[in-house]
Amino acid sequence: MGKGEDTRLAVLDQAIEVARRVGLRGLTIGSLAEQTHLSKSGLFGHFKSKEILQIEVLGRARTQFEDAVALPALRTSRGEPRVRELFSRWLAWESRPGGCPFVAAATEFDDQEGAVRTRLVRDERDMRDMVTTVFRTGVAEGHFRRDADPDQFAQDFNGVLLAYHHAIRLLGDETAETRANRAFESLLAAARAETSAS
Amino acid sequence: MGKGEDTRLAVLDQAIEVARRVGLRGLTIGSLAEQTHLSKSGLFGHFKSKEILQIEVLGRARTQFEDAVALPALRTSRGEPRVRELFSRWLAWESRPGGCPFVAAATEFDDQEGAVRTRLVRDERDMRDMVTTVFRTGVAEGHFRRDADPDQFAQDFNGVLLAYHHAIRLLGDETAETRANRAFESLLAAARAETSAS
Repeated sequence: MGKGEDTRLAVLDQAIEVARRVGLRGLTIGSLAEQTHLSKSGLFGHFKSKEILQIEVLGRARTQFEDAVALPALRTSRGEPRVRELFSRWLAWESRPGGCPFVAAATEFDDQEGAVRTRLVRDERDMRDMVTTVFRTGVAEGHFRRDADPDQFAQDFNGVLLAYHHAIRLLGDETAETRANRAFESLLAAARAETSAS
Repeated sequence: MGKGEDTRLAVLDQAIEVARRVGLRGLTIGSLAEQTHLSKSGLFGHFKSKEILQIEVLGRARTQFEDAVALPALRTSRGEPRVRELFSRWLAWESRPGGCPFVAAATEFDDQEGAVRTRLVRDERDMRDMVTTVFRTGVAEGHFRRDADPDQFAQDFNGVLLAYHHAIRLLGDETAETRANRAFESLLAAARAETSAS
């Protein structure tokens, strides 16, 4: 990795910090220069526009997510162990200082057509597809019912994480983690049950 | 209701629209003046500061939520019918154009100490208490198990709504509503079951 690339990554890490305080929507080359004391013209040399900066911040966050959550889960045994690893790592990711940048960006950009929203939707679809794919390994391994619905599981899985993020970050509810784990166990139990309640 | 109060409410409704586009955090007396073509000095006369404006927007959104969701639910029969009414009205609230202002504000202000966050936390606690209280009427009426945990139900209920909000608003997933309803039925089924799976 060259020195230019090192600098770029260091700047992006600072940009993630700035986005935590002002939102991804509030992250501009001007606000980044102000908060980091880097020169605005130097930052323009790296990023050209606010949209490019915002998209690169999402890209950096995605790499961090893959390193911390997705890749370690994919190295775990297929089936229920992998689903468990994915959940516990994702839960830890949501409770990092600053919370999940994707959760914040989702409500900031859900009404804003443009390149950032397009990128965010792609990332969110990829994350959802990862959950359904990992869940399907549990069906293939015989850990979950053959008629269990992976898309239902993915939406419910997301709900457990979002409710946890909300309770811990806004309300400071320290008991939220226990409840998130209980909710996850209920989802697994429903997926394992031999007969569907339908 | 006097003419001054009418004007104030009309301005707040426009402020809610502006907050949808720029975020509650981006809503200032300056940005509101710009977007509504009202005079900045006139708006200052109404709101005095950005924080007061943001807090009044939350107050207006809360009144709308109470009229559309909470009060009609509380007029429904105690127990499961009331829980169902609360859920179906809340789901409709989440899918209004612009989405739920509280969901967006939660991630905008979860890291920002101050009067707006304090107000938001109070509102969110009140909403959560309403869910547990309504759930408890179901226990009292014998519709739900006596050992069902109202706080667990409230967090799970919130998760179903947040996952729906995320799927419909960001991903435009039209099948999300069916899944949200299925997830809610699973929560009710777990609450009704005679014996706890624990």
